[in-house]
Amino acid sequence: MSPANAAPKEVRERIRRGEWARPTAGCAPGYVQANLVILPRDLAYDFLLFTHRNPKPCPLLEVTDAGSPEPARVAPGADLRTDLPKYRVYRHGVLAEEVTDLLPLWRDDLVAFLLGCSFTFEAALLKAEVPVRHLEEGRNVPMYITNLPCAPAGLFAGPLVVSMRPIPPEKVARAAAVTARFPAVHGAPVHVGAPEALGIRDLGRPDFGDPVTVRRGEVPVFWACGVTPQAVAMAVKPPLMIAHAPGHMFVTDLRDESLAVI
Amino acid sequence: MSPANAAPKEVRERIRRGEWARPTAGCAPGYVQANLVILPRDLAYDFLLFTHRNPKPCPLLEVTDAGSPEPARVAPGADLRTDLPKYRVYRHGVLAEEVTDLLPLWRDDLVAFLLGCSFTFEAALLKAEVPVRHLEEGRNVPMYITNLPCAPAGLFAGPLVVSMRPIPPEKVARAAAVTARFPAVHGAPVHVGAPEALGIRDLGRPDFGDPVTVRRGEVPVFWACGVTPQAVAMAVKPPLMIAHAPGHMFVTDLRDESLAVI
Repeated sequence: MSPANAAPKEVRERIRRGEWARPTAGCAPGYVQANLVILPRDLAYDFLLFTHRNPKPCPLLEVTDAGSPEPARVAPGADLRTDLPKYRVYRHGVLAEEVTDLLPLWRDDLVAFLLGCSFTFEAALLKAEVPVRHLEEGRNVPMYITNLPCAPAGLFAGPLVVSMRPIPPEKVARAAAVTARFPAVHGAPVHVGAPEALGIRDLGRPDFGDPVTVRRGEVPVFWACGVTPQAVAMAVKPPLMIAHAPGHMFVTDLRDESLAVI
Repeated sequence: MSPANAAPKEVRERIRRGEWARPTAGCAPGYVQANLVILPRDLAYDFLLFTHRNPKPCPLLEVTDAGSPEPARVAPGADLRTDLPKYRVYRHGVLAEEVTDLLPLWRDDLVAFLLGCSFTFEAALLKAEVPVRHLEEGRNVPMYITNLPCAPAGLFAGPLVVSMRPIPPEKVARAAAVTARFPAVHGAPVHVGAPEALGIRDLGRPDFGDPVTVRRGEVPVFWACGVTPQAVAMAVKPPLMIAHAPGHMFVTDLRDESLAVI
């Protein structure tokens, strides 16, 4: 059975058994995937407040009880220590190791944050016949550090990071409307056109991800990006922070459409 | 100048000067008003998590930095210690006093939570020609304690409280759609019809507020209610909790429409 046909629970169980250590794009299509950030409890209040103050880059799907690895609301019975294909462990802001389970590292004071991922809104764009260039070109989405500060909260502060998708002008309104329905996965664009107003000098040189082709007349459309909370959390250089490895997401039991606000 | 014609800042300044000590319904129409809950910092993480896990009864507009009385995002320059007409001070879960300013009580460890209030969505219902019975009858909205538990978070737990508005059957869909646009002020109904399924035995005997007339054929429509977070916070019997006095809300600088998601 391929993960593309499996239910979320089956995908997680295959990952837990070590049978799937690759990126999760395309796994359990139609279900929400999530970014993971794990922090010690003494940093959790400031980080939770940061996500509240910055809901577009940090759309929070679930926060676990301290010490519990179970995301009881979005995937009851799952185990965040074992059910992602790959994790990155940061110590004092430096990548210390990549691991495939967290059982030896888990502690009673750890809090896991699951944040919405753009896979859900990209599926909605494709269904609405809005092209998604980086998928067409088989690349990672281009991401840029902007000159817009996030609203700080306690220790956490930093610039907004955006992703960019070039959209034909007659489809910009549709792209905005389709993604506005999904605030829990970054929602509507934060900016349309005019990259220079965000402090972006060259669309061909993203800060993360890959450049994509922007065709004549296409408009660069910018969405708040889930790299923002990871970058901000890392900048504080906490003694321990754990995140998913890029592309190796947590597959939830939520259907994409369950996140639509209207 | 009557507060009904004043801008939010002018309303707050009149209140601060002691010139307006009455309920704020109708003040600065078109602007969002907010419920207030103030708790010590050591309870703030659990309460913030509770609001995240229960966004329909607890739509959070702003959380202040510990010790700061300024809601810098929704009303820069305002002072939550003086800018509401009346406050209730609870000690160990018991109403200790009603006061008109908090200057003598303020402490460096207090955190203020501002939560969306149903005035915004009632204005939207009226604009959409959906009748709002308790306004027609000059009463307070009827509220009921349900048999549905909120998602607990740390110390905070308790049942969902709902408000009820009787709606003509041909307008129920419109009432749902209009309020769904405003998740920051409770959003779409949580339940339509069938009060017994919520554990409500008699619509004529609400737990809070006043009963209203339900005409033949009208459907009782239930929305999550802002009384929920106050009731839950009070149940923990914190050494100190401060809230607005009922109806004496905080007037923000946000326009109602700025909260619409689409």
